[in-house]
Amino acid sequence: MEPRLSMITLGVDDLERTKAFYQNVIGWVPEPTPPEIAFFDLGGVVFSLYPHHAMADDMGVHTSKNEMPAYQGFALAYNARSKEEVDAIFARLKEHGASIRKQPEDVFWGGYSGYFADPDGHMWEVAYNPHWRVREDGRILMKAND
Amino acid sequence: MEPRLSMITLGVDDLERTKAFYQNVIGWVPEPTPPEIAFFDLGGVVFSLYPHHAMADDMGVHTSKNEMPAYQGFALAYNARSKEEVDAIFARLKEHGASIRKQPEDVFWGGYSGYFADPDGHMWEVAYNPHWRVREDGRILMKAND
Repeated sequence: MEPRLSMITLGVDDLERTKAFYQNVIGWVPEPTPPEIAFFDLGGVVFSLYPHHAMADDMGVHTSKNEMPAYQGFALAYNARSKEEVDAIFARLKEHGASIRKQPEDVFWGGYSGYFADPDGHMWEVAYNPHWRVREDGRILMKAND
Repeated sequence: MEPRLSMITLGVDDLERTKAFYQNVIGWVPEPTPPEIAFFDLGGVVFSLYPHHAMADDMGVHTSKNEMPAYQGFALAYNARSKEEVDAIFARLKEHGASIRKQPEDVFWGGYSGYFADPDGHMWEVAYNPHWRVREDGRILMKAND
């Protein structure tokens, strides 16, 4: 497999509610799709929302939303270009009444980071990492000397 | 927030075991890191492995690995450039004794898709989608007429 990620799909309880969160609170523009799914184009990585039951069926596994723990074994992250951008994002999240799980703070690895949860409890870290560069096109450059 | 994804972190039970899986079975090259974490550069999106307990601590939530259901509310996907590439990937996974959850098959949306699980049960879909183009650099182009 080439070193790339094509898509991440989050299981959701109420597709309209979660799509509205990413559209109105986060500010991303959904692609035109049938009403059963939502896609957002994150610079060539597809961010997708799909109902829990349909997703579990597609995988051939069984689950119910009641089995979901608060911590689901993964987190997504958005790297901001500055501490000020992190603060501005959390100010916006607060304005919209989003679920802020950890206010941004200086963290042990030298960055500045906080967490929010989307309407289904999926966790997003919003961080400023002085060791990594966010390129003009939004992609991460891990090697400072490249 | 700009439309981009910087990183996805998977919680793992045994970091060495899971890092070896992505390195030896999947074929990706890890970045140099301290032993507490692993990073893989997926074309400017960072794919990270981090122990469950450290990750939950970082988020300020409590969990145990025993609370993890088989279905964890999300899936990652790798879009292959052809059906043949999908088959070649599953042949390799089988050779390495990886956990194949769904053999690739033609699916209702017009593609060809299967699933495997990594050592911690995180699900990956490997699919050929004739409606989306995989660009030379690996990023997805959803709009066929761009």
